[in-house]
Amino acid sequence: MAEVELTSFEVCLQQLLIAVEASDHEEAKAQLQELHPGEVARILEALTPRERSFVWPGIDISIQGEALKEVNEDVQSQLIDEMSVEDLVAATEGLDTDDLADIVPNLPETAVHSLLLTLDKKHREHLNKVMSYPEDSAGGLMNTDFITVRSDVNISAVVRYLRLLKEMPVDTDQVFVVDRKFNYLGSLHVSTILTEEPEVEISTLISNEVAKPILATTDEAEVAQLFEQRNLISAPVIDENNLLVGRITIDDVVDVIRDEAEHSVMSMAGLDEDEDVFAPIFQSTKRRSIWLGVNLVTAFIAVAFIGLFEATMQQKIALAILMPVVASMGGIAGTQTLILVTRGIATGRVSTTNIKSLISKEVAVGLLNGVFWSIVIAIATYYWFADLVLSIVIALAIIVNLIVAAFSGAFLPLLLTRLKIDPALAGGVILTTITDVIGFVAFLGLASLVI
Amino acid sequence: MAEVELTSFEVCLQQLLIAVEASDHEEAKAQLQELHPGEVARILEALTPRERSFVWPGIDISIQGEALKEVNEDVQSQLIDEMSVEDLVAATEGLDTDDLADIVPNLPETAVHSLLLTLDKKHREHLNKVMSYPEDSAGGLMNTDFITVRSDVNISAVVRYLRLLKEMPVDTDQVFVVDRKFNYLGSLHVSTILTEEPEVEISTLISNEVAKPILATTDEAEVAQLFEQRNLISAPVIDENNLLVGRITIDDVVDVIRDEAEHSVMSMAGLDEDEDVFAPIFQSTKRRSIWLGVNLVTAFIAVAFIGLFEATMQQKIALAILMPVVASMGGIAGTQTLILVTRGIATGRVSTTNIKSLISKEVAVGLLNGVFWSIVIAIATYYWFADLVLSIVIALAIIVNLIVAAFSGAFLPLLLTRLKIDPALAGGVILTTITDVIGFVAFLGLASLVI
Repeated sequence: MAEVELTSFEVCLQQLLIAVEASDHEEAKAQLQELHPGEVARILEALTPRERSFVWPGIDISIQGEALKEVNEDVQSQLIDEMSVEDLVAATEGLDTDDLADIVPNLPETAVHSLLLTLDKKHREHLNKVMSYPEDSAGGLMNTDFITVRSDVNISAVVRYLRLLKEMPVDTDQVFVVDRKFNYLGSLHVSTILTEEPEVEISTLISNEVAKPILATTDEAEVAQLFEQRNLISAPVIDENNLLVGRITIDDVVDVIRDEAEHSVMSMAGLDEDEDVFAPIFQSTKRRSIWLGVNLVTAFIAVAFIGLFEATMQQKIALAILMPVVASMGGIAGTQTLILVTRGIATGRVSTTNIKSLISKEVAVGLLNGVFWSIVIAIATYYWFADLVLSIVIALAIIVNLIVAAFSGAFLPLLLTRLKIDPALAGGVILTTITDVIGFVAFLGLASLVI
Repeated sequence: MAEVELTSFEVCLQQLLIAVEASDHEEAKAQLQELHPGEVARILEALTPRERSFVWPGIDISIQGEALKEVNEDVQSQLIDEMSVEDLVAATEGLDTDDLADIVPNLPETAVHSLLLTLDKKHREHLNKVMSYPEDSAGGLMNTDFITVRSDVNISAVVRYLRLLKEMPVDTDQVFVVDRKFNYLGSLHVSTILTEEPEVEISTLISNEVAKPILATTDEAEVAQLFEQRNLISAPVIDENNLLVGRITIDDVVDVIRDEAEHSVMSMAGLDEDEDVFAPIFQSTKRRSIWLGVNLVTAFIAVAFIGLFEATMQQKIALAILMPVVASMGGIAGTQTLILVTRGIATGRVSTTNIKSLISKEVAVGLLNGVFWSIVIAIATYYWFADLVLSIVIALAIIVNLIVAAFSGAFLPLLLTRLKIDPALAGGVILTTITDVIGFVAFLGLASLVI
C-alpha cells in the first residue's frame, strides 16, 4: 500500500500518542500547547477514554472551558466527571452565556451552585434568560454579548463609544440600534461605521433588510437556513415584545449545521451523533444492542411471512435461493427514494406542498426501473434454472416490489415527520421491513399460485 | 392527522404554485419579489422543471446570477439551457470571482466568450487565478475581493483609507497587511481598527495567530475544519511564494460543510448530492438504475453462495426461512461500525494513527452483541422449530457474522480511503455483500456439517 501523507493534525496526534504511551506528561502537554481549543477538542475525541484522562489535566484551564464546550456530549461528561468542582468553575466561568447554558445542565449540582456564585447579577440574569428557552431554539443558541447604540447619535459618537469599549465581542459585524426601552429598531454594519462620514446620523443608516430580527422561539433548523440563505455572520434575537434579548453568531450556526448533518447520517444506523467513537466497550455494546434488537424483531416479522410458504419452497428450492434478490432490490430502490425525500424535507425543499408531484415521479421511476431490471433478472434466472415460470414469477415480483418501495420511500418520511417521529432514524427500518415482506410475499405468493 | 403549521417558506411556495397553476406570471413574479437570492434558489429546487421554466424569466436579472450560483448543479444546468447568451452575461457579470469560477465551466462557450469581454483586465486576471486552482481547493474557494494595508501606517490612516473606499467587501472582518511586493505579513481585525487609538502604527498590531494564512493548494475539507475549529469569518490565502492571492469567507465554507454532509448521506444510496429532487423521470431512472445494477450483481454473488447448499436446504427448509435473519443482523451491526468509522474519518477523528484501538474495540463490541443476540435468536428458533441443533447452528453463525461485520465495518473505510475510493459511496455495498455471504455460508455451511 502506498505511503499516505499525514496531515499536521495526524502528526500531532501521533506525537501525543507516543508521549502518552511513554507516560510523558511534559511532552503530552507540550504537544497540545499551541493548539486552538477547537483543535484540542478534536484531539480529545480521537483518544480513548484512558488516554483522555492522561492528557486532560495537562491542558491549560483557560483552554479547558472552551474545549469542554466543543467536544461531543459523551466526551464532555467523561471529562466533567474527572474534574474537581473548583476546576470546573474556573474552566467554565469565562464562557459565553450560550455556551454556559449548554454546559450547565451537565454539571454536578455543587459545581452549578459555586459557578452561579462567581457570576455577577447581570451575567446570572443573562444565563437565566438563555436557559429559559429550549436548547434547540434561537433563544438557546443566542449569546448576550453585543453592542447597542441609539438612533439619534451620529457616526462619530459611535466611533468614540467603541474606542471607549476597548474591545468588541467576537464576530461583531454589526451593532444593534435600540430605543430607551431596548426595543429593537435595526442594525448598523461595522463597514458602514468605518466608511460613512462622521457627521451622519444613525437613524438615516439603519438597515433592517439584512438584519431582520429572529424571534427567540424560532427553531434552530430554521435559524440555520436563514443564515445559509442570507449569508449572515450574526443576527439579532428579539422576544415576543420586540425587545432585543440576544445575538446569534455564525460559529454556533455552523455547529447546528454540522450536528444536523451528523445526526442524519448517524441515525440511519441507530447511532447517536453525540456518541464517543472510542466509548468503553460495554457502553457501546449496550447502545448498539438496542438497534440490533429492533432490527431482529423486524427480521423475524419478515421471515414469518416466508414461513407461510414453506410447502411451496419445499417443492421448488430455487425460490429459497432467489428470494433475497427480490427483497434486496426493493430495499435498495426504496432507500434511494427515502434518502432523497428525507434530505429534501430536512433542507426544506420537500413539504406537503409539493409531495404529490414527487410521489408520482418516484413511482414512475420505480415502475420503469422495475420493468427494466425484472427483464434482466428474468433472463439471469432462466439461464441459471432453465425454468420459464420461475423467471416470469420473479420478474413480476420485482416490478411489484419496486413500485411499493418507491411509494413507501416517498410517503414514509412525511408521514413520520407528521407523527413527530424522526424519519432519519425510523425510516430505514420501517422501509426495509416493508420491502422485505412485500418481496417475499409477492415472490413466494405468486409462485404458490402457479407452481 | 393534525393540521401542520406551514413555515413562511411553505406558504410562499404554496402561493407560487397556485400562481403557476393559473399561469399567472404577474402573481408568480410578485411572490418571489421580496426574497433573498438564497431563498429564491431553495424555491427553485422545490419546483418541477416545468414550473421552474415558468417562473425563472420573471425573476430579476440581478437576482438570477446569485440564484444560479446557489442552486444545485442539475437545476443550474436546466436554467442555463433556457437563458439567452445576453441574459447569461448580464446575470453573471456581477458575481464574485469565486462564484464566477464555479459557473464558467457550466456555461456555453459563446456565453463565456462574451462574458470575458465584459470583464476588465484585472477582473479577468483574478478569474484566471482562481480557475487555475482545483475547484475543491482553497484557491478554488477564494474570492479576490479584499482590502490590504501597509504595515508602516497608523490606524487613522487606515480609517481615512476605508472612508475613501466608501464600501467594504462583504464579510470583511479583517484587512490584510502586505508589503510592497504583496507578501502576506499578517492581518488587522476591524474591531481593532474601531477600538484602537488613532496614532498606533499597524506594525505593532498585526495579529498572525488567528489569521494564519491558508496555502492555495489546501484541500477544501481541511479549510472547512480550520474554519470550524477556529471559528473564523474569513482567512487569507497565499500562494507557494507567500504572496497574498485571495480571501476565503465563511459563507462559502458553510456551503462546503453542507455539501460534504449531503454527499455522505446521499452517496450511501448511490445518489448524487447535486441531483435535482424533481429531475425528469427518464433522467432519474437512468441514474438510479446504475446503483440498482451494482446491487443486483452483489445480490447474485450472495445467492450464488446459497446455491451451494441447495441439498442441505432441501433437507431442512427451516434453514431457508431463517437465513435472512443471520444475514440481516450482520448487515445492521456492520453498518453501525461502518458509519461510525466513515464519519470519524470525514471529521478527522479517526485515522491510521488510532484505527488499531478502534478495530479491537469494535470487534469486542461485535463479539459481545453476537453472544447476547445469538442466545435470544437461539431461544426464538427453538420455540419456533423445536430443533436444538438448528438453534445452536444459528447462534454460532450469528456470532461469526457479527465479528466479521465489526472487523469489516472498521477496516473497510480506511482501506477504501487509501485506495482513493469514496467509503461513503462504496462502503455499504461492499460491507453488506460480505455480511450476506458470511451469513449464508456460516449458517448453511455449519448446518451442512451437522445435519
